[in-house]
Amino acid sequence: METSSDCSSPAALLERFRAVRGATVRFVGPLSAEDMMVQSCAEASPVKWHLAHTSWFFETFVLVPYAPGYLAFDARFGWLFNSYYNALGVMPEKNLRASFSRPDLKTILAYRAHVDAAVERLLAGECGAEALDRVRLGCEHEQQHLELIATDMKHALFTNPLHPAYREGVAGAQTMEAVPLVFHEFAGGLVQVGASLVDGEFAFDNEMPRHKVYLEPFRLGHRLATCGEYRAFMEDGGYTRPELWLSEGWSRMRAEGWEAPLYWQRANGGWRVFTLDGWRGLGELAETPVCHISLFEADAFARWSGARLATEFEWERVATGLGVAGNLLESGRLHPAAARLGGAMQQMYGDVWEWTASGYGGYPGYRAASGALGEYNGKFMSSQVVLRGGSCVTPATHIRATYRNFFGPGTRWQFSGVRLAKDA
Amino acid sequence: METSSDCSSPAALLERFRAVRGATVRFVGPLSAEDMMVQSCAEASPVKWHLAHTSWFFETFVLVPYAPGYLAFDARFGWLFNSYYNALGVMPEKNLRASFSRPDLKTILAYRAHVDAAVERLLAGECGAEALDRVRLGCEHEQQHLELIATDMKHALFTNPLHPAYREGVAGAQTMEAVPLVFHEFAGGLVQVGASLVDGEFAFDNEMPRHKVYLEPFRLGHRLATCGEYRAFMEDGGYTRPELWLSEGWSRMRAEGWEAPLYWQRANGGWRVFTLDGWRGLGELAETPVCHISLFEADAFARWSGARLATEFEWERVATGLGVAGNLLESGRLHPAAARLGGAMQQMYGDVWEWTASGYGGYPGYRAASGALGEYNGKFMSSQVVLRGGSCVTPATHIRATYRNFFGPGTRWQFSGVRLAKDA
Amino acid sequence: METSSDCSSPAALLERFRAVRGATVRFVGPLSAEDMMVQSCAEASPVKWHLAHTSWFFETFVLVPYAPGYLAFDARFGWLFNSYYNALGVMPEKNLRASFSRPDLKTILAYRAHVDAAVERLLAGECGAEALDRVRLGCEHEQQHLELIATDMKHALFTNPLHPAYREGVAGAQTMEAVPLVFHEFAGGLVQVGASLVDGEFAFDNEMPRHKVYLEPFRLGHRLATCGEYRAFMEDGGYTRPELWLSEGWSRMRAEGWEAPLYWQRANGGWRVFTLDGWRGLGELAETPVCHISLFEADAFARWSGARLATEFEWERVATGLGVAGNLLESGRLHPAAARLGGAMQQMYGDVWEWTASGYGGYPGYRAASGALGEYNGKFMSSQVVLRGGSCVTPATHIRATYRNFFGPGTRWQFSGVRLAKDA
Amino acid sequence: METSSDCSSPAALLERFRAVRGATVRFVGPLSAEDMMVQSCAEASPVKWHLAHTSWFFETFVLVPYAPGYLAFDARFGWLFNSYYNALGVMPEKNLRASFSRPDLKTILAYRAHVDAAVERLLAGECGAEALDRVRLGCEHEQQHLELIATDMKHALFTNPLHPAYREGVAGAQTMEAVPLVFHEFAGGLVQVGASLVDGEFAFDNEMPRHKVYLEPFRLGHRLATCGEYRAFMEDGGYTRPELWLSEGWSRMRAEGWEAPLYWQRANGGWRVFTLDGWRGLGELAETPVCHISLFEADAFARWSGARLATEFEWERVATGLGVAGNLLESGRLHPAAARLGGAMQQMYGDVWEWTASGYGGYPGYRAASGALGEYNGKFMSSQVVLRGGSCVTPATHIRATYRNFFGPGTRWQFSGVRLAKDA
Repeated sequence: METSSDCSSPAALLERFRAVRGATVRFVGPLSAEDMMVQSCAEASPVKWHLAHTSWFFETFVLVPYAPGYLAFDARFGWLFNSYYNALGVMPEKNLRASFSRPDLKTILAYRAHVDAAVERLLAGECGAEALDRVRLGCEHEQQHLELIATDMKHALFTNPLHPAYREGVAGAQTMEAVPLVFHEFAGGLVQVGASLVDGEFAFDNEMPRHKVYLEPFRLGHRLATCGEYRAFMEDGGYTRPELWLSEGWSRMRAEGWEAPLYWQRANGGWRVFTLDGWRGLGELAETPVCHISLFEADAFARWSGARLATEFEWERVATGLGVAGNLLESGRLHPAAARLGGAMQQMYGDVWEWTASGYGGYPGYRAASGALGEYNGKFMSSQVVLRGGSCVTPATHIRATYRNFFGPGTRWQFSGVRLAKDA
Repeated sequence: METSSDCSSPAALLERFRAVRGATVRFVGPLSAEDMMVQSCAEASPVKWHLAHTSWFFETFVLVPYAPGYLAFDARFGWLFNSYYNALGVMPEKNLRASFSRPDLKTILAYRAHVDAAVERLLAGECGAEALDRVRLGCEHEQQHLELIATDMKHALFTNPLHPAYREGVAGAQTMEAVPLVFHEFAGGLVQVGASLVDGEFAFDNEMPRHKVYLEPFRLGHRLATCGEYRAFMEDGGYTRPELWLSEGWSRMRAEGWEAPLYWQRANGGWRVFTLDGWRGLGELAETPVCHISLFEADAFARWSGARLATEFEWERVATGLGVAGNLLESGRLHPAAARLGGAMQQMYGDVWEWTASGYGGYPGYRAASGALGEYNGKFMSSQVVLRGGSCVTPATHIRATYRNFFGPGTRWQFSGVRLAKDA
Repeated sequence: METSSDCSSPAALLERFRAVRGATVRFVGPLSAEDMMVQSCAEASPVKWHLAHTSWFFETFVLVPYAPGYLAFDARFGWLFNSYYNALGVMPEKNLRASFSRPDLKTILAYRAHVDAAVERLLAGECGAEALDRVRLGCEHEQQHLELIATDMKHALFTNPLHPAYREGVAGAQTMEAVPLVFHEFAGGLVQVGASLVDGEFAFDNEMPRHKVYLEPFRLGHRLATCGEYRAFMEDGGYTRPELWLSEGWSRMRAEGWEAPLYWQRANGGWRVFTLDGWRGLGELAETPVCHISLFEADAFARWSGARLATEFEWERVATGLGVAGNLLESGRLHPAAARLGGAMQQMYGDVWEWTASGYGGYPGYRAASGALGEYNGKFMSSQVVLRGGSCVTPATHIRATYRNFFGPGTRWQFSGVRLAKDA
Repeated sequence: METSSDCSSPAALLERFRAVRGATVRFVGPLSAEDMMVQSCAEASPVKWHLAHTSWFFETFVLVPYAPGYLAFDARFGWLFNSYYNALGVMPEKNLRASFSRPDLKTILAYRAHVDAAVERLLAGECGAEALDRVRLGCEHEQQHLELIATDMKHALFTNPLHPAYREGVAGAQTMEAVPLVFHEFAGGLVQVGASLVDGEFAFDNEMPRHKVYLEPFRLGHRLATCGEYRAFMEDGGYTRPELWLSEGWSRMRAEGWEAPLYWQRANGGWRVFTLDGWRGLGELAETPVCHISLFEADAFARWSGARLATEFEWERVATGLGVAGNLLESGRLHPAAARLGGAMQQMYGDVWEWTASGYGGYPGYRAASGALGEYNGKFMSSQVVLRGGSCVTPATHIRATYRNFFGPGTRWQFSGVRLAKDA
């Protein structure tokens, strides 16, 4: 029973708010103020900025409109920590976030406390349904940014020439037993996909409306593709054979000099892999899911395998009914884990986000929310690809069968991997 | 009766081959050897290159494998006029095509004649089904490039600081009567889409397999959006209101300084529009379909209109059963034409390619052809958007209800426009 | 009496070493560890990196070769804090320096202390002439980086959207009295330029050998050009008249959108100027030297003024014999100061680096040092322009009549300005 | 006696005008209209544009102001063929010149004839001194562009994947005898440099005023560096040793992937070299001067040789008094030729432009002309390096001891090479 995701009452929501906000601060515990300044790639933001921006979200969308008498912590933060909401006016350029040496971390933590206290007061009092909805949305938003903190910090530590680990001494041994891949067949036909909210549940606007799609019969791999399988693709010339690649992927791969997943580095005639626990040998990780690959690499690997990527609805069909469980953030591993022996469907949730064959678009009848919150999802519906299932840095209460993540097809800094599918 | 598209026999195919090859040469009649050298944007190629490349296609995929004793016109052309078929080896960089001052035009025309004679000999003799299929594919390929010649030449003439017209004195007066927009409602349900070949027909691999999709009921505009309507969008701040735009579109539009469709230029306090017949006043064109807009502009315009783009399957559902007729290349207009009074569905074929809401991907069970021809369509299935219906420079025998064109969402040099759709 | 620049004995050098190292640490006093992480433009480095790199210089060029038994603080720092000495092997890319969240500031300060102690031990013992020379070079190097710290930190604070000041409450009122510009005439003829070392003196290799040049008679302005004069240039269309500009400057200015010196910003119908003391109104600074302009702007301004830039040797000829005095770092102003009434030559040292008309090259007979130290100056002798005289953030003991600074002609983040010259 | 460079009378000038204009048309004889369209790198322009622009120069600067009643050939050409004279208003972007398919070549040749006739009429009548000066300048301008036509056409043919030759069958055998390099010593002291015009002579404004410079004694190689010597530099790791390179050169070389001079290509385990006569083996050219290298490569080669580049004044000092003779355009070789046996100074004129150690700037007292002609030289006086002596595609009547050519240090498409110098 996941009580923490039950938000059907103000009290339950308050509990969730505390859990979510606390998880973020707990995660950044091992980091210094200097670590939290780093912005090491265009996709990433400094951790300190994430800490501030998530608080700004509650302040802007909950406290300012719904908490009478709320006093802003600092009036300038209203535009300083805006990310992309054009409707709210100008904002600093994203690539300047690393220049926010001030406000300093101490101030940002005080800002968080100020916002937390005000939200708690609001939830403890008379609080309308719309305000509650927005607190709930703010919690989901905070969880998205907690995942980004893990993702961005991994990149920041990797970019540091000394390659420090996020933490020391945690990584345990992984099972080394190979788990043969099994394809399960699923019937086709008309199926219902997307979210239809019942009391206390949450979904983003891009998961709705619930609607019908027609599927042909298909087969889906029972586990994720592994590092060992991916290495075989590499050793078979995967990065040198244009017939395996989408044209755009081939160009991108060559322009950027990819020859392995992000975070893989040649060492002693083999490969080592950077993780939040530092470097680990590829041999040790051979049976774990391959991670930090782009859609282009996932697609080329699938073609090489004589398979293809699943569509987002094939994935959803299989996931529906499976409980949300797996190697998610709460497991504390912070890295994908090997499958277990046995042929049942595994790793559908957690480990790595699974690239799909589906471009990201609106469902039939899709309507974005009005006002600034309408900029949350809809305006990104071009040139992006849907990923499903969450990763080892996704909070368990944040993922579900209908959840649609989306990134450009060249994205690699995410914990993204691949599950093979085939026609029936 | 369109006999020229019937290719069920070698004789019929020969007739088509002659028609198609002749149409290309006829179209370039008004152009000089110097005109045919120009490459004025990254998407475009010189006309001379198109003339050679289409011949190369027949030589490489028909004559070399199927015409015993065929003697290549020039062995170097085998790689010189390859466009993107990696399986065939190295090729010159696309942006160098304008440096092909040699072979000169005279040589290229001799190359065409050499290839034509060999193909005609082949078709007159014993010719297997596979060779026939490839001649047929070569004809479709040639027609695609004829359309590109028109598109590229328009851009080349526009780029010339003197803005010469492709031809003089042809543009007739357009009807100026406004045709009120009507939305027709169509029922939803399971429909069959895609091509299923019967004898003598042709479709690209990306139109297959024929398969079922489920549609919600929807409404579709009976005509294309006009220049006048688009100007109203512009005058209402269309290019300055981020809430109307996809995020990627907003960035692209600002980075490139778009403030109107391509080929529109400010003049005397209003706008003039460059056409293959030279400059024309916007007033004169107000009731003609807006053209040369990107997906981003089409989408923003639709949002501003309180509507949306149709999906490719909504479009196909409506187009199915309508005869292929309209303002296509053979009309000789070379520019979109105004709708006629009356509320029946119009302009579904010709005038402008219609941007859809559908990302370009493979149909369920899609398989690319093997070998180099497999690079024709499948490898472009990322980050592209489907367009439907053909334009005023599309040959009539080349278009059909299942035809899928595709370009990146920022593309404007095509004759691309928009038809509005709505939920039912 | 400037005893601190007398380094003729180990004891004197020790005193200087302490003074120089102490000045650096004193300057960064008002900054937080987070401030010292910021790298806000391609020319700049984080302050923390400067603190480490200057220590690395002593470690690499003094302690490792000359201090028997010296134990490196951290072996990895040997490559981590290399800047551009190819002879010493690989080094991190400059644009990654902001990712050095670790080693943290505390560690860097410990590194400094470790190096300081070792150098002090070395100087207290038997120490050969070559080691002494290198300590002396290290002191000059440290002073260059102290100046860069001031320059880079100003840019970092300016880039922060909140625009914090480096310090508060220091900026005093400036004299507002206009000082009419006087041109002094100087005779031509053969003159000696460049440095010829006598005991205890120091010069960089690029100041030598001392040699003869022939000068035509010339006139030189007795003070620097002011903000008020530069504003008049702007108001007279200075940034819109191509005839005033070098071709390269015109292109650069338009590509980067320059319309005023760096750090000038429109405010309330006028201009405000960012300084290390925060924003100040242009009116208040009208009589102070214009600062943070490129060579291109200095040159266009001079042409507009009916004048020209001085050559480096004209400047040196006038400076020779003048004592080193002026608004240098030790004045604590950290901003150029207005000239005083009176017509004698002023502001030759300090305030702003003065752009000259001289490309940066080697003197006749120039030889770079051998080994890694040979990479200090000589390898930059292309596409750079000489600046003379030091600025308000240059340490007084670091500047002299023969000193040659050099930057690319588009550089603006330096405290760089202009003094007018004319033919006689 | 070079009568053609005597322009002291209108009749002599008319003779020269005819010779110069005729030489241009003669040179383009082997080229097709298509060849003359190609623009294959940023530095180059299409030949057709050169033909038009040189005519535009006479029309704009001679006929319009000085030929009463002159009727422009086409009013639009006034801006269409402007190159960079901002004072004359807007002009097309340089990179669009390849889109000038119209006016076609025939029209441009008619334009030339029209201008020629008008200039001849002007010179035959009453013609003031200023008009004569401008015709003279126009002739020099035309000769510069004739050299550019040869340079640009070489690049265009090289860029063509078929690598056609400009002409066939001309290249004769070169002497293969090695000529040992001798350094001659020259005394230092005060010398006069620059041009001081006497009747009928011509010099560009950047060669004036004549003035004094002081030189140290120096030594200068008696011939140019050869391909064989340069190959030895390459084989000794010249392109892999940073200590040999200017910092800017090292970066540029790596960014552009240089590993040999432009036009050298690996073939059969050795190198072949593209010339206007097509490919030739490096072995055959080993004793000819190395050509098409940048300043950076010339400088690195000199450093590797234990030598340096000469300053422009050292070169001028030696050239003064030597007659203008050598392998210039009129020799018809169109490629540098090997030195002859014997130790006297050789190859000072012709073969290759010699990179110097001198940045390009104005001489003391330099004044640009007023009006648009003032944009001829002065505005390029930044970030360029002086080259001296002319090349094998420089007309003999166009070069002299005081002539200063200038290009950016990374330029390679010119016929540029290196002569070694040393301190005495």
